[in-house]
Amino acid sequence: RISWISDIVVVVSPENIETMKTIIEKYGHKRVTVVEGGKTRHRSIFNGLKVFAEKEFSSHPLQKPEVVIIHDAVRPFVEEDIVSKVVMAAKEHGAAGAIRPLVSTVIASAADGCLDHSLERARYRASEMPQAFLFDIIYEAYQQCTDYDLDYGTECLHLALKYCKTSAKLVEGTADLWKVTYKRDLYAAESIIKDNLSQEVCVITNASGTVAKVGLLLPESLKSQIKVEAVSTSQSRNYGHLQNIFSGQCYNFICVNDKKCAIQETQQLVHMLEKSDIPLLYPVVLILVGNSWNNSFSIGMEELTSMKKFARETKKKNILVYGLLIQYK
Amino acid sequence: RISWISDIVVVVSPENIETMKTIIEKYGHKRVTVVEGGKTRHRSIFNGLKVFAEKEFSSHPLQKPEVVIIHDAVRPFVEEDIVSKVVMAAKEHGAAGAIRPLVSTVIASAADGCLDHSLERARYRASEMPQAFLFDIIYEAYQQCTDYDLDYGTECLHLALKYCKTSAKLVEGTADLWKVTYKRDLYAAESIIKDNLSQEVCVITNASGTVAKVGLLLPESLKSQIKVEAVSTSQSRNYGHLQNIFSGQCYNFICVNDKKCAIQETQQLVHMLEKSDIPLLYPVVLILVGNSWNNSFSIGMEELTSMKKFARETKKKNILVYGLLIQYK
Repeated sequence: RISWISDIVVVVSPENIETMKTIIEKYGHKRVTVVEGGKTRHRSIFNGLKVFAEKEFSSHPLQKPEVVIIHDAVRPFVEEDIVSKVVMAAKEHGAAGAIRPLVSTVIASAADGCLDHSLERARYRASEMPQAFLFDIIYEAYQQCTDYDLDYGTECLHLALKYCKTSAKLVEGTADLWKVTYKRDLYAAESIIKDNLSQEVCVITNASGTVAKVGLLLPESLKSQIKVEAVSTSQSRNYGHLQNIFSGQCYNFICVNDKKCAIQETQQLVHMLEKSDIPLLYPVVLILVGNSWNNSFSIGMEELTSMKKFARETKKKNILVYGLLIQYK
Repeated sequence: RISWISDIVVVVSPENIETMKTIIEKYGHKRVTVVEGGKTRHRSIFNGLKVFAEKEFSSHPLQKPEVVIIHDAVRPFVEEDIVSKVVMAAKEHGAAGAIRPLVSTVIASAADGCLDHSLERARYRASEMPQAFLFDIIYEAYQQCTDYDLDYGTECLHLALKYCKTSAKLVEGTADLWKVTYKRDLYAAESIIKDNLSQEVCVITNASGTVAKVGLLLPESLKSQIKVEAVSTSQSRNYGHLQNIFSGQCYNFICVNDKKCAIQETQQLVHMLEKSDIPLLYPVVLILVGNSWNNSFSIGMEELTSMKKFARETKKKNILVYGLLIQYK
């Protein structure tokens, strides 16, 4: 996703390594090396760093980088902006990390389970990810640190300070750095992804004549709620323009036809979508709007069956096809 | 929601007092007094406490309680269990509060924006709500505390410790105490509510003969996914049983009819739902499954229009009516 990152090391627990490799292959991720994790956070990070430094650890050792970024997979919504800020600060200070204001007051409890003291909220911050380090500094820190650090520590910035006297620059991060920790966070993550996928819709008109009007009216009425691209493929075989849209971030397509089931046109569109990388990352929704000239909403069973079969096939390719039959008088 | 709480004081900013009063009236909340908030958290809480102690502050002073619970409205998913634990602990220790493990490491920054030191995560906790106090202790603490405390403090437990030498008992809370803080938390809250509303469905069969089979088959096939109550109103006029279901936590009803649009039966059901308090708190979903005997899915325009009008009316009462026409051969 970020072009100036040259290598990505994913540290995974032993039992999930195969799953991770399958995911990387399925979605065609490049620049990724999978490494087995350790029993604690620090041991896992250390394993990840070793790939750049120790030849015996990997058959294809990666080139040692100037700066290394450490990030949690449970913070999937990190923006390039904060990554870049943290890297710049690490180049200057040797170490840097994202921080956020505290949401709750932090307290220390006494041995009897009662309040010992509370911290003044304004003076403290929550340490988040990403963090970045000059590679030599953080690797040196991990090599020097004790087993106690490796087993009970949680803070990389602390290691850089303790073992390399490098005081990390703290960079104020945005709210989307939050950790997907609880079940409710999965709900939130799902909604954020859905929101992002619903930014734009492309209305494709295969129709001519009166039905083409629908292809014109629909974008007009959608415009107030969502970014709309309108393409007519019947007039100028406007497939070049479609290709441009496919290379963007559009996941929603409405296809207006003057037939009840325009399977052929749809197959062509699905084929183009497949060739683009869009359905690899997120599901693509394709709504076919067919036209019904007579007064009932009836549709032949045969047509319906073949359409449903087609939709089942495309679903495997992460393209969700829906049909909508309207009466246009 | 919790019967052993005798009075609820809601502290609201001046501009939202009218809205809050409207909500309380609309949903028929009892035992609630609305109080104007202050400029800071502590000033607002102090205003809330004064209602129990100072006669000039309210025309109907409330009786002074033994224990007072302080809670944030932004933590709507609090369970009775933790409230009760905190109250019991407050009775014994004078003060008590819910705590949670820290999700991120807490750090202190130096004046230059660099890391000063980080706290050992295991030794600290996040202080959450609810908290409970012997009324005399927390009121005494608020009366004694300085303007600086009132303007910059955030922790009630701290005030009880500082001014009344009362060290609060800390009670481990559950994850649902979290604060609805960011937009993503609204998504999470919405999903949790939806999940809770989708625990149970009631299938009501008004039909007899062959269509009644649908009323039998549907609960069978739903059983694996959701708790199902099945009621047949045609056989025994089983309305007593329906009333029992209405007094429970069921928000989803599927009504199987042998007519296309059973408006009369539906009106009766909607009337019963209205009389129960169910639609006051959350929307109730009512799906009408009608039967279509001939081979097309057509439905008369007149029937459709009157059904849509009916659904618009019930929507105002927080009852969402949907229609589904099936072909049962």
